[in-house]
Amino acid sequence: MAEYSSILLEKAVDELSKLPGVGKKTALRLALHLLAEDKNKTDILCKSLTDMRNNIVLCKKCYNISDEPVCSICSNPKRDDNILCVVADMRDVLAIERTSSYNGLYHVLGGTINPIEGISPSDLRINELLERSHKENLKEIILALPATIEGDTTNFYLSKVLKDFKGIITTIAKGISVGDALEYADELTLGRSIANRIPYSK
Amino acid sequence: MAEYSSILLEKAVDELSKLPGVGKKTALRLALHLLAEDKNKTDILCKSLTDMRNNIVLCKKCYNISDEPVCSICSNPKRDDNILCVVADMRDVLAIERTSSYNGLYHVLGGTINPIEGISPSDLRINELLERSHKENLKEIILALPATIEGDTTNFYLSKVLKDFKGIITTIAKGISVGDALEYADELTLGRSIANRIPYSK
Repeated sequence: MAEYSSILLEKAVDELSKLPGVGKKTALRLALHLLAEDKNKTDILCKSLTDMRNNIVLCKKCYNISDEPVCSICSNPKRDDNILCVVADMRDVLAIERTSSYNGLYHVLGGTINPIEGISPSDLRINELLERSHKENLKEIILALPATIEGDTTNFYLSKVLKDFKGIITTIAKGISVGDALEYADELTLGRSIANRIPYSK
Repeated sequence: MAEYSSILLEKAVDELSKLPGVGKKTALRLALHLLAEDKNKTDILCKSLTDMRNNIVLCKKCYNISDEPVCSICSNPKRDDNILCVVADMRDVLAIERTSSYNGLYHVLGGTINPIEGISPSDLRINELLERSHKENLKEIILALPATIEGDTTNFYLSKVLKDFKGIITTIAKGISVGDALEYADELTLGRSIANRIPYSK
């Protein structure tokens, strides 16, 4: 006998529990929720998922996800196309966009150099970045990779690869979080915060 | 501009975050997971959900969810059809089945009497229960409703409705949990545990 007296329910729970962070209990709760709701709610949910999966593409310029061949950021004439921000992942684009403090373009590498996980430079969109650095009229490339060893390695690698770039190469500031007390900051962060101190202004 | 540079992604996140316990951040994580996986993974997930939603029915005998008109418990000849366990919800059937200590049949009421939420006896499958108590060859009806005020009210109501039932009516024992120390049990539970004490055996 099926665990749930229904093979259909068991199958749905199995599939839902393959999602990250969803265990059997949560999956059962989600499935029973859908059963209690109108049939068309399930149809709408599934349509939105398959539409997304089948129709989302990577922007052919910046490799961010997009509904069109060129994404809404790359094709926005109001964005400053002299600045390019290099990020590891499309989630980082979302995070930077939420700050509303950047108006340039992006380049999504697709990860960071990570020998342990077998990610080498050739797995990332570094050639594409190099090409953009030659072809586009860029004045600045911002390296906004994660503040991890892998991020630092990738930063170093990119700075070597981009040595012929005519503009400036910058990296995002690392330091203590806004609102943080010094005593609770970890030593590495606080140390870096002191080493990279900047002139006091305003 | 869409929050996520993709209206398709935004739509999927919207729909996912309508699920119980799924916020915008979790929904985004689920959507990005599906995007990173093979296209057919999304198809399989959606097929299992729509199959479940469109084809699951309520068993016409016990009102548990089922793939067939009569569920696998009601149609199992090995189950004892002299005992009927009345539960509020199909989740309770799952919970009791997991204990492997019950081999009779079930009757899913569909809730408990709850005037505050507007659930009156006529909203529950009480007439159906009454009919089963007359037609089926039952020797015992176990009331296994939640140990809440609503559950107690419903138990009381059912005991009145079933006054002509020839067999015995029992209710599940309430008391301290197995493995619990007395000092940590709440007063109501411990009090009930003492009031409903049973002869010591074995």
